[in-house]
Amino acid sequence: MTRPYSTRVAEAVRAKGSACLVGLDPHLPSIPPEFQAVHDPGATRAERAAAVGDFLVEVIEVSAARAPAVKPQSAFFEALGADGAVQWERVIAAAHDAGLLVIGDVKRGDIGSTAAAYAEAFLTGVAGTDPRTLCDAVTLNPYLGSDSIAPFLQACQTHGAGLYVLVRTSNPSSHELQAVGSPTLAEQVARLVGRWGEGCVDGAGVSSVGAVVGATHPRELARFRALLPNTPFLIPGYGAQGGAAEDVVPGFTDGALGGALVNSSRGILYAYRERQGTPWKDATRAALEDMAESIGGAVARTFA
Amino acid sequence: MTRPYSTRVAEAVRAKGSACLVGLDPHLPSIPPEFQAVHDPGATRAERAAAVGDFLVEVIEVSAARAPAVKPQSAFFEALGADGAVQWERVIAAAHDAGLLVIGDVKRGDIGSTAAAYAEAFLTGVAGTDPRTLCDAVTLNPYLGSDSIAPFLQACQTHGAGLYVLVRTSNPSSHELQAVGSPTLAEQVARLVGRWGEGCVDGAGVSSVGAVVGATHPRELARFRALLPNTPFLIPGYGAQGGAAEDVVPGFTDGALGGALVNSSRGILYAYRERQGTPWKDATRAALEDMAESIGGAVARTFA
Repeated sequence: MTRPYSTRVAEAVRAKGSACLVGLDPHLPSIPPEFQAVHDPGATRAERAAAVGDFLVEVIEVSAARAPAVKPQSAFFEALGADGAVQWERVIAAAHDAGLLVIGDVKRGDIGSTAAAYAEAFLTGVAGTDPRTLCDAVTLNPYLGSDSIAPFLQACQTHGAGLYVLVRTSNPSSHELQAVGSPTLAEQVARLVGRWGEGCVDGAGVSSVGAVVGATHPRELARFRALLPNTPFLIPGYGAQGGAAEDVVPGFTDGALGGALVNSSRGILYAYRERQGTPWKDATRAALEDMAESIGGAVARTFA
Repeated sequence: MTRPYSTRVAEAVRAKGSACLVGLDPHLPSIPPEFQAVHDPGATRAERAAAVGDFLVEVIEVSAARAPAVKPQSAFFEALGADGAVQWERVIAAAHDAGLLVIGDVKRGDIGSTAAAYAEAFLTGVAGTDPRTLCDAVTLNPYLGSDSIAPFLQACQTHGAGLYVLVRTSNPSSHELQAVGSPTLAEQVARLVGRWGEGCVDGAGVSSVGAVVGATHPRELARFRALLPNTPFLIPGYGAQGGAAEDVVPGFTDGALGGALVNSSRGILYAYRERQGTPWKDATRAALEDMAESIGGAVARTFA
């Protein structure tokens, strides 16, 4: 049996000295012009998708030195249809080959029998699935309640998988539902996340059932950390969405970067657009290094 | 430009004399034994997926006479990975060729830039996508609020697409979050759905922004219908999940089956398991006919 996700991600963070999660969001117009087929109006969808895969495989090679994990965003692959699905599997396998953990950003949530199919799709696999194409963890939407999560909890126990349940998202309209009520909806979800995670705690007392809490709400991040002391956080919203290194610090549990991964997608993948004259790969490498240094420094200062 | 989804679905219901939505949930162990590769441990994933597609194409042929629409459930295709994605496109094209509307049951919900990619994936298509493989409507999860819905609203306006936002789902644990608060979370979502739909109203005063409200909550169904008089409902939970014809009646707006589609998945696709000795296709045809008669009769009696 695979060891618990919580243990594996903690080890990966220590090994890389970084809590940077590289979001693989292949937004077509932003991909460097070197990947010509992406931008060629005469290219077929399959050619375009293959070029997207080529780009992401190179991003993975550049990221492997300084990132413990990558987070492919399913939507951008699905936009390329069946051709995108082929590249989804290719990119995940490439990340595993590079020694990276893979968090599938899929935000699924459905009734029990359907949730079981999603758990197979991303975490456990049907017969004939290459295990290298499965994710180590996925993001989930809690709107349907416990039975939408149960098949994934089972995958945590049987396959050492991890989950990150949406609690408080980073987007501007997240308050419309998540911040309403007393306790707020997000706080109610946080309590459920704590309960769901109780059966998936590793030897260090950390659960494999995590929470997504956006960097765009730094004060709330501290509150959710207090509510969920043993829950891994996935913190989106850093960089392009406005979050700074200081904003993410309350998500961590110690000065050695325990307890949280911080995602950046556009800020890493498309760093070349902000660094005129720098080849895209050098720009990506430098942006990831900067992010790791900024967050590592801010966390170390706070817990010193 | 395509006419509004709300208009097209109303016409399809009138043409078929039925509000039955056939849910295409290819749960592998339930598929009739005639589709041997599904059950053959030696089959490759591609062979298994192709046999799943063969089954669903036949289901579509059987359903076309009496169903206005089908609802493929993405999870069961995704469980078959890239091979399933090929069949997803094949099945949707076959449904369109048979004159059926297609509601992609994908329950997506993500931040704006990602939601835009999902809208492309299912409703509008990137360059090189065969439009026959796109859906007429999709189901969406509201947890992230308005900016997760905005790109889909745009698809309603530009492509005549339809949406069904999860309000109150049919599963046993749906109360954990949806029924909490005053107003409840589901009622808050219903108000947002009403507001989101205001820009997508057809000549008959009906919006293309619909709501999912489960048959397993008949009293609430009447409340949500009162809150949302001009909103198309997608009602899951009929049949296998426990809802009866009388339970779905409050979702309709008139005696001619206006205002709602009622979904059945397992009860139609796998009807052969309840009708010993009947070939699967005859069992499926009879189950669909029974469902159409039961619901048609119950609605006609109520509005008479």
